[in-house]
Order: sequence, then structure tokens, then C-alpha cells
Amino acid sequence: MNFKTLELTDNKLRWIDQTKLPLEVVYKISDDYNEIITAIKRLEIRGAPAIGIAAGYSFAIAAHKAQDVSEKFILNVADQLNASRPTAVNLFWAVARMVEMYHKYKDESKKVIIEELFFEAKCIHNEDIEMCLGIGKHGAELIKDGDTILTHCNAGALATGGIGTALAVIYTCKAQGKTLKVFADETRPLLQGARLTAWELQQENIDVTLITDNTAGMLMRLGKIDHVIVGADRVTANGDVANKIGTYAVAVLAKENNIPFYVAVPESTFDRSLETGDEIIIEERSSEEVTKGFGNQTAPDGVKVYSPAFDVTPAKYISYYITDTGLKKGMRE
Amino acid sequence: MNFKTLELTDNKLRWIDQTKLPLEVVYKISDDYNEIITAIKRLEIRGAPAIGIAAGYSFAIAAHKAQDVSEKFILNVADQLNASRPTAVNLFWAVARMVEMYHKYKDESKKVIIEELFFEAKCIHNEDIEMCLGIGKHGAELIKDGDTILTHCNAGALATGGIGTALAVIYTCKAQGKTLKVFADETRPLLQGARLTAWELQQENIDVTLITDNTAGMLMRLGKIDHVIVGADRVTANGDVANKIGTYAVAVLAKENNIPFYVAVPESTFDRSLETGDEIIIEERSSEEVTKGFGNQTAPDGVKVYSPAFDVTPAKYISYYITDTGLKKGMRE
Repeated sequence: MNFKTLELTDNKLRWIDQTKLPLEVVYKISDDYNEIITAIKRLEIRGAPAIGIAAGYSFAIAAHKAQDVSEKFILNVADQLNASRPTAVNLFWAVARMVEMYHKYKDESKKVIIEELFFEAKCIHNEDIEMCLGIGKHGAELIKDGDTILTHCNAGALATGGIGTALAVIYTCKAQGKTLKVFADETRPLLQGARLTAWELQQENIDVTLITDNTAGMLMRLGKIDHVIVGADRVTANGDVANKIGTYAVAVLAKENNIPFYVAVPESTFDRSLETGDEIIIEERSSEEVTKGFGNQTAPDGVKVYSPAFDVTPAKYISYYITDTGLKKGMRE
Repeated sequence: MNFKTLELTDNKLRWIDQTKLPLEVVYKISDDYNEIITAIKRLEIRGAPAIGIAAGYSFAIAAHKAQDVSEKFILNVADQLNASRPTAVNLFWAVARMVEMYHKYKDESKKVIIEELFFEAKCIHNEDIEMCLGIGKHGAELIKDGDTILTHCNAGALATGGIGTALAVIYTCKAQGKTLKVFADETRPLLQGARLTAWELQQENIDVTLITDNTAGMLMRLGKIDHVIVGADRVTANGDVANKIGTYAVAVLAKENNIPFYVAVPESTFDRSLETGDEIIIEERSSEEVTKGFGNQTAPDGVKVYSPAFDVTPAKYISYYITDTGLKKGMRE
């Protein structure tokens, strides 16, 4: 990749400040875990896998800089990290893993503790890199040279420690010598498609065209799209998928136009504790993201707004789940 | 209505400057046809029927203020009006009608010519008011008290000389004592839903909730929408509908969720010279409306953008055409 979302260098974390994209590419570097927590809170680092990796490194960096790696100090760091983004499952998971590693080695010398914590943080990162490569490899089997792909939101390298999930398929195809064309939905309200997906595909010299969310259906009807690939926040036991708002519409339009619809997700995103997507609680976003999106006010004062962060796409619309362990056939006929 | 899009008062035209909505309600008044042409060019007055009406009044106002209503002067005014918005069919139609009226009376006194031109312009306006009322009356038959309606773009009073087309149905229901709830798609790229539909429904005390275009599908799937009503730019001989980009997606989602989908259009919008929607040339909009739409730049420099102004919804997705002369059953099963 021509950019690095997250990187450990000289016991410091280096990251792209994603709040500055796509206008400026600003790398930040820090060995102060408080600064990294602030970066997570400010969405400079975003995307569930990327947040988990940053949390792992922060934990090791905090221990490294501490006078005394006491249990009290370590558990306090863990609490602060866990509080940085309250709904990020990967964050809690990574922090718990680091705390467990600390407990395993806490009676050793500080040097050993620090080494083991850095090692564990790198493992979290490396596993994520492998996961992305696995998704890319399996997904690429579905795509042939010259195909055109539509994607929604950003399930790319900027959201992970590796080459992404949905976009991993595209990067892997490119590495295999396939020439693809990509349409990126801008993805209102927060425009992750315009700000992040368009930017990262540009960096990798992939032929990307930005469209409004309203334009995807027309392109499908006119036969301009061969495959739709999206990521997912969660997949329930019956195969329903929670993902960024608008994913359901794209899935319905794909089915109506006989275009295969793929969900690229690591195995860890399958949440078998929930039977169906109906059990998922839908987070509502602030009205200002819609009425004052990016600079100017675009709706009348006092207007009611309903802005759910994600929607549920029933399993019957999904052709394949592209996971790090292989392709799983979906229920779409 | 609690506002007037266009009004002739004391031989002057008074209009709402729609470029200032929804933040400010600024009425402008002028008896200078050049100023009115500028207002049409600047989109202060927009919507095909409203532009046609403004052109009719401008024509009469120009003649009224002229020293000499010579044929040369009149044809020059007609040319200037026709050049104000090159693709507006209603504009050309209204100007041709005014020129014809001039030719009929050109050998009469100036007083008679002026009277006849103002009369003709008022006829154009009154016919539009009647057309809107007819659409409202017929459409209201489909809606019952307590229903929830989704609409896309702005097919309202702001686009016509009367109570609108799609929104005429809502206003008529309200006048009949029915209580409705409306969801308005914001309608990227130009946000006519957020800027205009939300504003005008608020003015009329209609319960309106603004959503991103991405949210419409989820609401339909969750059973929150009883009817979808949109306007149209053109209906071809086979019943295909050209309308604002994103209409096709809404129509497919409505069909998938068994929600009736209505197109509210005057009879004059049926263009039987075109066999199907495939013959309609799709106008492309500037990339800046997508990349710098809200004030700030939201996409990387140099990104390719595809931004069609409208799409085609095939006849098979349409439950009813609501016209000024009655309901026409569509081809949706």
C-alpha cells in the first residue's frame, strides 16, 4: 500500500489523521497513550479493526513509558482505553487481550513485561493483516479481469491494520494483474465513500468514480455494475447483516438487477448470539450530520430528522459472505 | 398556502428567492423583465411549471413597460426568455403561447395588446393552479387518515404556480382533515428535499421528517411507509418515468416491500413522441455539486465523478399515475 493507516515505529505509534482526509495527508506520531486515546476519540483513527490495533499498541506504549507497571496503573490504562469509543467491540476485545497478557507476565521483570506486551500488540496487528489478506484472496476468486465493482461506505485499508475487507478484494485483484473499475457511493450522512474510499483507491491507482448514493440504482439497471461488495459491522446467526445505512437499498437493487451482492467480513464479525438482524439495536446519529453536513446549513431550522447509523440487510439478499477462511454461499437464489 | 411562489401584483412580479431557502424567506418584486430573466437563470425561480408562469408574466411586463410594442421588440424579449434555461420545455411552451397572443392582437392599440398579454399570462398561471388542484383531488382518493408518505426531491408548491404535484396530494389530504406524516428524502446532490420540500411542508404545518436518501429503504422494510409519491419530468408512451436521480431506487424498494408507488404528473408531462425511457438523454451535472456540495470539499482532488441529473423508472414499478384528469393504473402488479 502507498499509505499506512497505523504503524509501530521505534516504540511509537504513527497514524494517518483521518479527520484531515481527503484534503491533507497528515501523519501523526506519539509515544503518549493519552494522545492516542484522544486520536481515537476524535476519529483520527477509525474503523473497528484499526481501533483495536491502536488500543493494543497504546497499552504497550503506556507500560513502556511508565515508571512502574503496577496492576493499578495497567488497569487504569485499560479503563481509559475502553472508554474512548463506547461501542467498539474490537476495542474491548483487544484491551482484554492485553490485560490478560499483563497478568500472565506481571511477576516478571519490567523488561519482560514490556517485550511481551509489544509482542502481543504486534500479534493483534499481524492477525488483522492476515485476515485482510485472506478475505482478499477468497474474494478475488469471484472477480475477473475487466469487471466493475460498486462499494458503499469505507471497508478499506483505512479501517483496518491491513488492506481492508471489501476493498481487500479489489487490492488483491489488482495484485493479480486484473484491471478493475470501481464506483464508490459517497455514503451520506458522513460521506465515508467520498472522503475515504475514493481517497484510498486513488492512492493505489485504482480506477474509481465517485457517485451519489442516488446514482447506484441507475448504474445497476443500465448493466454498468458486475459485483457489489460491502463490509459489515455484524452478521447474525441467520445470516442477516448490519452495515452502514443504505446497504439494504444497494442489496435490493443488486437482486432486482441480477448482480451478485457480497459481504466481506472476518469470521470474528459473525455474532451467533443474535438469532436475526431484528435483534440488533439501531444507533441514531445526530440531526446536525444531516442538516449541517459539511459546512453550510442545508435544511430549515427545527426540522425533524431521522438518521440511523446502519440498517439490516436480510440474508436472502446476500450471494456470498467473503471471509478470511473462505467463501460462504448466501441465501440469495 | 402560507407562502406564494409567484404572484402578479400591480403589474409587477413578486417571487420567493429560492436560492435563499431554507435559511431566509426573501420575497423579491420587479417590473423589469431583465431582472426576472436573471432570477430564472439564478434558480431563484425553479421548477418547470413555475418557470413557464414567470416567463408569461415577464413577457406581459416587458410589453407594458416598453415605449413601443413592436414585433421586433417582442421577438427579442421572446428570444431572451427562451435563452434563460435552455432545457425547460414549459418555458418554450409559455413563450410561444405569449408570442401567438401578441400576433393575434398586434394591430390593436397598445392598451389592448397589454391587456390581452396580461390576461394570457394569468391564464397560464390559473391553468397551472387548476392542474395542481386536480392532481391533489385525485391523489387524495388513494390516501387515508393517519397514513405515512415518502417523497423524493421537490414536486411541491415551490415548483409550480399552485400547490404542487406530488405535494398537492398531501396538501389536499390536509384540507380534507386527514392527518399525515411525511418523510422527505434529502435528494443529493442538490438537496431539494432538505432545502425545499422540508421547508414548504413546515410552512403548511405538515408533520415532516428529513432523512438521507440512504434511509428510505430501511423505513420501507420496517413498515413505516404506506405510500411513495414523486413527481416526474417526463413520462414516455410506454409509461416509463424520467425524474430526479434516485427515483428508480425508491421505486424498486417500494415494489420489494409491497408499498404502492405513485407518480403525480399533469397530462402535459406525458410525452408520447418517445416510445420508452431508453430514448431519454440523461443530463450530467457538474462534479463540484458532489465534491463541494455543502460548502466544504468532501472528496479528494481530481476524483472522477458521475452525476446524472435524473434516472428512468420503468413502467412496471408504477402503481398509479396521478394526473389532473384522474388516476391511471400503472403496470405494477
